[in-house]
Amino acid sequence: MQRGSDCLPLSHLDPCGSETFPPPQKHEVNSPGAPAGVSRMRQTVIFYLSYLLGVALSLACLVCVCVWSARWRGGFAWDGSGLQFNWHPVLMVAGLVVLYGNGAVLYRVPLTWGQNKLPWKLLHAALMLLALVLSVVGLCAVFGFNNANNIPNLYSLHSWIGIAATALFAMQWVAGLAVFLLPCSPTSLRKLLKPVHVWLGGGILSLSIAACISGINEKLFFVLKASAGGAQPYSALPPEALLANSLGVLIVAFGLVVFFILSNQKWQRPDSRPEELAYTPLLQEENE
Amino acid sequence: MQRGSDCLPLSHLDPCGSETFPPPQKHEVNSPGAPAGVSRMRQTVIFYLSYLLGVALSLACLVCVCVWSARWRGGFAWDGSGLQFNWHPVLMVAGLVVLYGNGAVLYRVPLTWGQNKLPWKLLHAALMLLALVLSVVGLCAVFGFNNANNIPNLYSLHSWIGIAATALFAMQWVAGLAVFLLPCSPTSLRKLLKPVHVWLGGGILSLSIAACISGINEKLFFVLKASAGGAQPYSALPPEALLANSLGVLIVAFGLVVFFILSNQKWQRPDSRPEELAYTPLLQEENE
Repeated sequence: MQRGSDCLPLSHLDPCGSETFPPPQKHEVNSPGAPAGVSRMRQTVIFYLSYLLGVALSLACLVCVCVWSARWRGGFAWDGSGLQFNWHPVLMVAGLVVLYGNGAVLYRVPLTWGQNKLPWKLLHAALMLLALVLSVVGLCAVFGFNNANNIPNLYSLHSWIGIAATALFAMQWVAGLAVFLLPCSPTSLRKLLKPVHVWLGGGILSLSIAACISGINEKLFFVLKASAGGAQPYSALPPEALLANSLGVLIVAFGLVVFFILSNQKWQRPDSRPEELAYTPLLQEENE
Repeated sequence: MQRGSDCLPLSHLDPCGSETFPPPQKHEVNSPGAPAGVSRMRQTVIFYLSYLLGVALSLACLVCVCVWSARWRGGFAWDGSGLQFNWHPVLMVAGLVVLYGNGAVLYRVPLTWGQNKLPWKLLHAALMLLALVLSVVGLCAVFGFNNANNIPNLYSLHSWIGIAATALFAMQWVAGLAVFLLPCSPTSLRKLLKPVHVWLGGGILSLSIAACISGINEKLFFVLKASAGGAQPYSALPPEALLANSLGVLIVAFGLVVFFILSNQKWQRPDSRPEELAYTPLLQEENE
């Protein structure tokens, strides 16, 4: 059932007990009864199917939120009107959910494993920075709309959860840059903070999803009301409500796929391959 | 830095790559530079602090939601009125969040590790069954209220996410009973489904939290409106809004603590201790 030696040298163990736990051997022993190559191939196929499903759900979320804002809510502007508000759902879904989720699973793509980690660290940081910028612009859109229309800011639970998600995201990005990219940060700090970075990363995605669901729900109650002109209320589930509810379901489905990919230990990047590491200041702790 | 031998026998590896990955050794090697006993003690202290924080947040959530329904919303009844609706937030928070989250981290309590797993499996199943029953009664409360007041059921995104969380929870409980408790289920099926059970368990908690946040947000917009009698709208953040928003924050904080406990591999139950296992039909796959 198992190929290779009968023991794993303890020197390969990651001291922080995180994702670098001896991956090459994990891939060999995880499917008793099946040859290791077949098991590895099956894992790769399941990963890419999950990853493609995540990409498809990402695109579906973006299409849905853009169609909702552009087709049903009148389009976009930056003039303090409702058209400025329309940037808010688009930018929050694009930044805090779609880009964030795709940035989170980047290290899991097997295609990236044969190369140094540094370019992927930089891409992870860049994707997350872009996600953060989109989210902050999305917040500016709603603050500007509220201020222009004398609506108080930050009173609803939706806004509390959304602002907490964005603030934690900003802190997480700055801490990630300082601890995992800057060459001066000590190894012990990286080892200490990596599990916290991974846990808080998942927590921020959960908060983002909760903020999206409550925001879509709130918006539909605000705008879908019965009128003398024959407009249907939210409770009659008119086409706009179906579309926006479906957007919420797509966001939740995307989050579940991201958590599925992150939860599978077999899909973690095999970082403990010392032969891949060459010394440069930034690469000195490449296998953290 | 490390005590014990220099290699781990591969025969101790859990074939499904899940939480039974050689735990006794993990505890020994995860803190280079510190004696293993000190490291283990520090992990135990951090676990119990996190666990106590989770218990404190559980109690705070229950107190908050009960005070909200009893003091601000008029109390409880089962007569189709708003007093029947008041059971809905209390039972959903108690079942789908508090009991569910505490049931999820049960296996992480080190006090339970020195004993056979079966009683804890049964307690896990019982806690989850109680959580499911409370959730279903909580859904009955709102369906009864809606039906008595000619309000359509299941149109809002909040209701879609909430019903999906409860339905997935029911499926997860039945599948968990069939696969992990009934003695007739094959070992290969247990190994295949355990990671799915763990992932879906976390996903259901995320959905529950999203449903709670959107439900609290929606309820506050419904009931807190400016009136000639001087009632303050939600946007003025009256005391009731502060209380219910705080309930949402407590729910999110509880969820983050649960995910923190679940994400730490060092706190997983060391199931691969064959000396603990005695044969009975239910115990035959105790280390799954």
